[in-house]
Amino acid sequence: MKSFVFRLVLASVLLWSHQGCGWAADFAKVLTDSRNNISVKRWKLTSKEVGAGETGAPWSITKRTLAGGRQTGVEVIEVDNGAMKFTVVPTRGFSVWSLHAGDLRFGWDSPVREIVHPQFINLDTRGGLGWLDGFGGWMVRCGLESNGAPGKDGSQFLNLHGRIDYIPASRVEVLYEAKPVPRIVLRGIVEESLMFGPQLRLAAQISTVVGSKEILFEDTVTNLADVPQEMELLYHVNFGTPLIGAGAEFIAPVKTVAPRDARAAEGDINLWAQYQGPRPFGYTEQVYFLELQADRAGMTEVLLKSPDGKRGASMKFDINELPYFSLWKNEAPLKTGYVTGLEPATNFPNPRAQERAAGRVPKLQGGQSYRLQLTVSALTSMAEVGEAQRRIKTLEAARPVVNPSPRELD
Amino acid sequence: MKSFVFRLVLASVLLWSHQGCGWAADFAKVLTDSRNNISVKRWKLTSKEVGAGETGAPWSITKRTLAGGRQTGVEVIEVDNGAMKFTVVPTRGFSVWSLHAGDLRFGWDSPVREIVHPQFINLDTRGGLGWLDGFGGWMVRCGLESNGAPGKDGSQFLNLHGRIDYIPASRVEVLYEAKPVPRIVLRGIVEESLMFGPQLRLAAQISTVVGSKEILFEDTVTNLADVPQEMELLYHVNFGTPLIGAGAEFIAPVKTVAPRDARAAEGDINLWAQYQGPRPFGYTEQVYFLELQADRAGMTEVLLKSPDGKRGASMKFDINELPYFSLWKNEAPLKTGYVTGLEPATNFPNPRAQERAAGRVPKLQGGQSYRLQLTVSALTSMAEVGEAQRRIKTLEAARPVVNPSPRELD
Amino acid sequence: MKSFVFRLVLASVLLWSHQGCGWAADFAKVLTDSRNNISVKRWKLTSKEVGAGETGAPWSITKRTLAGGRQTGVEVIEVDNGAMKFTVVPTRGFSVWSLHAGDLRFGWDSPVREIVHPQFINLDTRGGLGWLDGFGGWMVRCGLESNGAPGKDGSQFLNLHGRIDYIPASRVEVLYEAKPVPRIVLRGIVEESLMFGPQLRLAAQISTVVGSKEILFEDTVTNLADVPQEMELLYHVNFGTPLIGAGAEFIAPVKTVAPRDARAAEGDINLWAQYQGPRPFGYTEQVYFLELQADRAGMTEVLLKSPDGKRGASMKFDINELPYFSLWKNEAPLKTGYVTGLEPATNFPNPRAQERAAGRVPKLQGGQSYRLQLTVSALTSMAEVGEAQRRIKTLEAARPVVNPSPRELD
Repeated sequence: MKSFVFRLVLASVLLWSHQGCGWAADFAKVLTDSRNNISVKRWKLTSKEVGAGETGAPWSITKRTLAGGRQTGVEVIEVDNGAMKFTVVPTRGFSVWSLHAGDLRFGWDSPVREIVHPQFINLDTRGGLGWLDGFGGWMVRCGLESNGAPGKDGSQFLNLHGRIDYIPASRVEVLYEAKPVPRIVLRGIVEESLMFGPQLRLAAQISTVVGSKEILFEDTVTNLADVPQEMELLYHVNFGTPLIGAGAEFIAPVKTVAPRDARAAEGDINLWAQYQGPRPFGYTEQVYFLELQADRAGMTEVLLKSPDGKRGASMKFDINELPYFSLWKNEAPLKTGYVTGLEPATNFPNPRAQERAAGRVPKLQGGQSYRLQLTVSALTSMAEVGEAQRRIKTLEAARPVVNPSPRELD
Repeated sequence: MKSFVFRLVLASVLLWSHQGCGWAADFAKVLTDSRNNISVKRWKLTSKEVGAGETGAPWSITKRTLAGGRQTGVEVIEVDNGAMKFTVVPTRGFSVWSLHAGDLRFGWDSPVREIVHPQFINLDTRGGLGWLDGFGGWMVRCGLESNGAPGKDGSQFLNLHGRIDYIPASRVEVLYEAKPVPRIVLRGIVEESLMFGPQLRLAAQISTVVGSKEILFEDTVTNLADVPQEMELLYHVNFGTPLIGAGAEFIAPVKTVAPRDARAAEGDINLWAQYQGPRPFGYTEQVYFLELQADRAGMTEVLLKSPDGKRGASMKFDINELPYFSLWKNEAPLKTGYVTGLEPATNFPNPRAQERAAGRVPKLQGGQSYRLQLTVSALTSMAEVGEAQRRIKTLEAARPVVNPSPRELD
Repeated sequence: MKSFVFRLVLASVLLWSHQGCGWAADFAKVLTDSRNNISVKRWKLTSKEVGAGETGAPWSITKRTLAGGRQTGVEVIEVDNGAMKFTVVPTRGFSVWSLHAGDLRFGWDSPVREIVHPQFINLDTRGGLGWLDGFGGWMVRCGLESNGAPGKDGSQFLNLHGRIDYIPASRVEVLYEAKPVPRIVLRGIVEESLMFGPQLRLAAQISTVVGSKEILFEDTVTNLADVPQEMELLYHVNFGTPLIGAGAEFIAPVKTVAPRDARAAEGDINLWAQYQGPRPFGYTEQVYFLELQADRAGMTEVLLKSPDGKRGASMKFDINELPYFSLWKNEAPLKTGYVTGLEPATNFPNPRAQERAAGRVPKLQGGQSYRLQLTVSALTSMAEVGEAQRRIKTLEAARPVVNPSPRELD
């Protein structure tokens, strides 16, 4: 638990005041602000209006409100940075539904084909699995009070993966800065605040340099109360075709890896990082729990490599902030949710009581904050994939410990 | 179970492509399409715009969005075919709230006086009876994963009557064709699709010939997954005053009839098809389970006859598609939900495990479809009622088997 | 139970027909009417338009619809009567979120900082405590089928404090009358009507004389069914700073007082009416159950007095209508919901089965109504506070019975 102390930063509740970070945007627009009753339903900004920046690549930011079916009322912000397009969903906890870099898609074919509005979701249904009823996004946060399998923690019932993905953002701001490099920045505030419950505020920043194939998530979770509060945050980052399929591979500087349960321990444990392609009816998911090696600063990197090795997704993060990593393999039939999840987190997605006992649940004092960063890159050539592999290689100081059977990691 | 095989038709997922059915409308308008983000909130089409057709009867189709109370945001389509008016509710699973043919009403006086929006419904509340909190429609579908009493099926809890009545349509289209007879057609797509759950798509068509007193429901349920999926569908078609009251009668070519439970078995079983009028406080509902006789093609007909015999509702359907029929009698006090339900279905509304054991739960293979048709006619004269009675008579080859006590029909 | 008979008034279901009460407004505007599909989202009326009345004080009534976060879609009516401002929330059961008379605030700093829309609330979650997830208002009704702690009543599970605070009003009307004194009147109809459940209609009137510091609640609850129905109604009227803090006091003509449970019985029972100011982490709420003395007509008064004695809240009501009173003290840390609730009610907020056994649950016959009135005054000087204390003194005929340990009051 001691290491958490270093990760906890006492942050001002007045987050993102421009004075505070000494940063000035060349353009700023508030799209949503519940305190001042601002809600812009339809809006667009393009490089024509503010100048394309040094790179000259044209870009655009479009705010829309969806309609029809269970997506009625969902607000989305579509960003095109010239090299990538992605869709941020303020109504769904400021998550990202999908990202495209040319013909490389980050995302998956979920049975849930609409971006379901929280009004249609009951998190407690299906024995606490209601979170799945709208599960279809690419970058989805699980938390903030808890994540992981549903179940009891003392007398409290916790639903699968918490509430944050179904809370609409209270504040949304779009910024653009021309220098030092042209950059698009989206900021959202999502509050998980209840009477006689947690008061956790997520201040999420999503940014991308114009013309780049990289997206940066910078999150701060603050305990708004004046009493201590536990928190858990897991980034459920999901990939389907074309990235996975028979021959795809997960590559990471593994320190330890273990199957989550008997199901994950089936078959040859040495194939845990390999993909076989969609399995027949009857297949059920396999999850592996990992701890990773990192550089001296704590930075690590993982890679998902396509079957032909020409495409990939790279994720970089700090193991001081995100010390536990889960690999979720769901090689179900193609139309039944063929997907894998790369999941850096503050904890493993076990029941919270189990995580607490293992010392993996951060506790925030009143007013205290927890900062997290995650960088995801779209790799679109064999050269880029190779470079990522080499970077990961340099992080491997020790040989990985592979546990063939499920075991407690602590 | 074998007979289901014949009812299962492998249908293209690209349902209703106009090429596919070789059918061309004289007018077509998409009112809702979640995929293309189309949502027309207010719209009207009348016979003046497209011509009244051969019959010359004026007609209209009006789309509106309701406001106030628990109906806020509910979208309705009001159809007036010149002889009948009815209200289709895309927001509520493309059901029909009520129908009027002159002073003959199909519908009832529910304690639920607003068309409640799904956002205000929790299907799991009241021990899984939350479906009732918005129950007030005339033609309501129960399904698609399951219908019937709430309860456990293995480890899965199933709420009363499933989800489909509280899912908004993802696609709504209105069509009009002038020939061979002028006809109004409404089409809706409602998706009951969850991650790690069913992926059942309802493609519902509601049509009526201009100037007629007949409404035709043509539904197709498709399993969008590539793994097998069970389904259940029950048409909960509800009638109150003026059709029922002391002396009203249910008439059908009964093959077998049995009370559902001890309560339904109370009193003289021979009166199961008779109505007594509203009973005093303390009355509880009675349900009878029927199998029906049919013609060689499988077509059958049932009739609800008003006390004076001058009005009625006729329902025609195919017992290959809808082999099981429930008669729900709720002769409660007038302001407490005085109503009867005529309910053709794929199954009896028992817990699904019980229905599965009895071989009454269809299973769809991946991509497979199940088609169902139901025709309802408003009878507004003694002559029309008499004709329906004669048609039903011709279907009665054998004497009905009346079981005085509840028993398993298989 | 006999006394209830006198309180029960058979009222016409056609409530508030202007003919019925022989009362004519100088101005009337329907803002919401689900039956006639009226919904005015944005509207304003000021004294300029209709004349300021005899007092000459300017006033205004503003209807707005909120946006952003979990308050998206919430409709509010802001009333400024020249001396006080308050916010009525039709979307939340026609409750009042806050009231300000100059720098005196009625309301509190809830962890819930937005007026949460019912679409985001699941009353059954957290073991039936979901009501708290949007709890942040000043004058909140608990009921109508039940209020109090969640739990089973026979086979029926009842959530904390019932449904009425999360049902949007079906009808909202604003009226203004110039004589005998200029008065602003808001009327709302909220229906708690379910199939196979209660059919209780709340007809709520909120009025204030222009330029006064008094607000009057006149509620009528009607059983719309033709069968008997129990009801419970509790006014959860909540105050935080600046009214409470170390040295604040609750003053009432107490007949009996008893702690609700062992927790409330801790410490010196004689301090039950005193406030200590925010307590450290670990504090849990204390509740006291009271019966009050009243004048011959049944009218009583209670007072919440600020630490410096210069400000207060006075509540007047009839103990024939509201015979049971709860004092809720939640002297939690300041940012964790520092608040007290003054709660006149038809019952104590115990599980309904317990209240029924004690004869404290009114039962309405079909069509029968229950009327309730509550007057709240903002006291803004030592003189006004002193007058309230003197009025309360005159109601104290007998010495209060203080029960140091929890006990059944009957």
